[in-house]
Amino acid sequence: MLSKRHPQLNKNGELIHLLSIEGLPKAVIEHILDTASTFVSVSDRDVKKVPLLRGKSVFNLFFENSTRTRTTFEIAAKRLSADVLNLDIARSSTAKGETLLDTVANLSAMHADMFVVRHSESGAPYLIAQHCAPHVHVVNAGDGRHSHPTQGLLDMYTIRHYKRDFTQLSVAIVGDILHSRVARSDIHALSTLGVPDIRAVGPKTLVPGDLREMGVRVCHDLEEGIRGCDVVIMLRLQNERMSGALLPSSGEYFQRYGLTEERLQLAKPDAIVMHPGPINRGVEIDSAVADGPHSVILPQVSFGIAVRMAVMAILAGNEA
Amino acid sequence: MLSKRHPQLNKNGELIHLLSIEGLPKAVIEHILDTASTFVSVSDRDVKKVPLLRGKSVFNLFFENSTRTRTTFEIAAKRLSADVLNLDIARSSTAKGETLLDTVANLSAMHADMFVVRHSESGAPYLIAQHCAPHVHVVNAGDGRHSHPTQGLLDMYTIRHYKRDFTQLSVAIVGDILHSRVARSDIHALSTLGVPDIRAVGPKTLVPGDLREMGVRVCHDLEEGIRGCDVVIMLRLQNERMSGALLPSSGEYFQRYGLTEERLQLAKPDAIVMHPGPINRGVEIDSAVADGPHSVILPQVSFGIAVRMAVMAILAGNEA
Amino acid sequence: MLSKRHPQLNKNGELIHLLSIEGLPKAVIEHILDTASTFVSVSDRDVKKVPLLRGKSVFNLFFENSTRTRTTFEIAAKRLSADVLNLDIARSSTAKGETLLDTVANLSAMHADMFVVRHSESGAPYLIAQHCAPHVHVVNAGDGRHSHPTQGLLDMYTIRHYKRDFTQLSVAIVGDILHSRVARSDIHALSTLGVPDIRAVGPKTLVPGDLREMGVRVCHDLEEGIRGCDVVIMLRLQNERMSGALLPSSGEYFQRYGLTEERLQLAKPDAIVMHPGPINRGVEIDSAVADGPHSVILPQVSFGIAVRMAVMAILAGNEA
Repeated sequence: MLSKRHPQLNKNGELIHLLSIEGLPKAVIEHILDTASTFVSVSDRDVKKVPLLRGKSVFNLFFENSTRTRTTFEIAAKRLSADVLNLDIARSSTAKGETLLDTVANLSAMHADMFVVRHSESGAPYLIAQHCAPHVHVVNAGDGRHSHPTQGLLDMYTIRHYKRDFTQLSVAIVGDILHSRVARSDIHALSTLGVPDIRAVGPKTLVPGDLREMGVRVCHDLEEGIRGCDVVIMLRLQNERMSGALLPSSGEYFQRYGLTEERLQLAKPDAIVMHPGPINRGVEIDSAVADGPHSVILPQVSFGIAVRMAVMAILAGNEA
Repeated sequence: MLSKRHPQLNKNGELIHLLSIEGLPKAVIEHILDTASTFVSVSDRDVKKVPLLRGKSVFNLFFENSTRTRTTFEIAAKRLSADVLNLDIARSSTAKGETLLDTVANLSAMHADMFVVRHSESGAPYLIAQHCAPHVHVVNAGDGRHSHPTQGLLDMYTIRHYKRDFTQLSVAIVGDILHSRVARSDIHALSTLGVPDIRAVGPKTLVPGDLREMGVRVCHDLEEGIRGCDVVIMLRLQNERMSGALLPSSGEYFQRYGLTEERLQLAKPDAIVMHPGPINRGVEIDSAVADGPHSVILPQVSFGIAVRMAVMAILAGNEA
Repeated sequence: MLSKRHPQLNKNGELIHLLSIEGLPKAVIEHILDTASTFVSVSDRDVKKVPLLRGKSVFNLFFENSTRTRTTFEIAAKRLSADVLNLDIARSSTAKGETLLDTVANLSAMHADMFVVRHSESGAPYLIAQHCAPHVHVVNAGDGRHSHPTQGLLDMYTIRHYKRDFTQLSVAIVGDILHSRVARSDIHALSTLGVPDIRAVGPKTLVPGDLREMGVRVCHDLEEGIRGCDVVIMLRLQNERMSGALLPSSGEYFQRYGLTEERLQLAKPDAIVMHPGPINRGVEIDSAVADGPHSVILPQVSFGIAVRMAVMAILAGNEA
């Protein structure tokens, strides 16, 4: 799907689209994280706007509904002083039989500056990036099972915030890795940033074996999987994406893979627990852990605004 | 439901949430009305924005749909230069099984400054106010049958605009008081502001008897109820909230409780007629009255913007 | 439906509503096109905002859903620095039995400055313009089969951009003219601007005969219809508006009325091909034509933003 020349970078190696963390150079990832840190400091001091995207039009193209993700992008864009248009694509021209590419060509012609795209089909944001006008930047806000790069980046921001150095870490990703676009984005980012010990933990039906080829240690026992970890990334049990045969009962799943305080003691004493949300209490994570001292789930949400501001600000400054 | 310490006020007695008119000191209500009057004068001279909420994020959390109320808050917030995010909660994370409190915690973490909450369950805005981050202000935009404080406040603004002195007034509230959050808010506000004669008028099935304990005169005959009144507040027959047994036919209801020009002559010659809208013409109110010289129904709508601006501006200036 | 005094113009002949191109003086149309050209030049140089509608509230009242048209108005309004409110009317007070005019009166009372109205009933924007507060300007964004004046105006802008002089042109409008509000708007505008040769081309069931009274040449053969034309305006086959008996099969329609490269050679060598979108590829237009050198379909979309900015800016400057 990726052409030889990386579709996210211009010839100077600058980011012009954010489609996937796969293939992003370490320097680009670090630039995003560094930029995000300037927005966090603005945001924490006092809620202010910066005029970096003043007069720009950001279109939220959500072919698949996700109020939470849409909201974080809308906040980020408005804090950069952009104008935001939410397009309810399911009810729009596509319903009249217009092709995806015609919709995109039309929206480009309206002088959009940025498309934030959520789509149930893997690869849709790539297709859009290839066909939209050269002045439009595309941000992938989740495509099928493939990628969710801003979630991956905010996870990296969170880890760096609490752990500083990636090159000494053990990170366990726990749960339904098969259906998770977050897991894939995280694994690519962790590899690029030099994490030496990445573990994928979950039932055989939900952890693809080919992760081993990416240098990931696959583990079907939770206690073994989180032992000695610095970071535990819990994934949501995506009931809504699973077909029947794969679906464990919630109780059974919790018994084998639910993160409890007791199990968490196997990780390092200063381990952090992350989750992309929304959490299923008592399914993949116990409330005592979700609300406990190791949890950084809510800081992740806050950092997510800063990271999305950073991505948009960087894209807006670069030309195809 | 209310804890000992009033959840709407900080220790300096300043408003930090607007959850209910019940328990609001007279001085706070008058401060809101006085502040609103400054926004009305701005608004009437020329439609301008004021920068009081510049850079702030107001989240409209409508768990129950109400385009009209949502619109008035959105206008008020935008005239204060806030950024407004409309969250279609029914389609969002709550649909994925997230708890109300987790949704609220996540939205707090996005650095929201204000939540405008509409919910079908009485008390939901209290629960949210108790659990959201300390920097977030909560405005109740209607919860179940319980309260609709900004409607109550705009009613008080309207009465004060036309009648000046509350302490000499007779006010009749007519109709489906049982299902009306507006009626409860109005009664609390009228009491606090010193109205000596408050009457609740309607059929036995729709007027709760315990209003008498609040100093309200209960009356089941319309003509007796509005005789000599300065203010007649008509309520909407909330067909959509009633179960079958309580529901009178529209024709029958109008015959007994519909406000006609003839009946209105029983009130004072300069009486004003109010209604929270949307009106049911020919059900609770005759068109000749709704569109007639005593009606202040449309000014209520205009004042509602100013009152909501005042509430938001006051909240934004106070710290928990 | 039109009263004697033209409802779109004040006593100085200035535009105060845009309801229909029918009856608009040539000077007013040319003023809109000239104004639009200033916004295109701004828009092309760099995406910037102009403060012409700063602090004004534009309400999008879409009684009929149209994401595309709503979006273009929202962009235009935001580029003029207006605040935009999208009202999902189908879910709002009208659903509670409120009349259209009560809804409009209420929205007027919220100090709206402009209503952009889309309605399935012809004439609804007129009714609204007659009954809303005098400070509110109404823009018709499409009413039933009647009119879609901003589409007509952007078509005129496009033609003038490519062809300069209207008084020497042959223009063919091809397709489902019966159900097209675009066709009616175009025909009125072309007549007013002095186009000597206007042709309506399509099957008998889809071309009303009374167009002849408007000086339009009616033609049921496509090749005859586009021969020697400067401009070919293709219309969308509005499957969603047709009842069964009138509906040709897509394949059959394309064979008789679909625009192919071969057929287009019958038009002038420098002919332009227009379409209001969304296009049905292979139904009314071949992809080779839609994407070919004669197509100006995407420039139409861009010009549409500038034209809508012009209409709003002009309206906001005039008083009833």
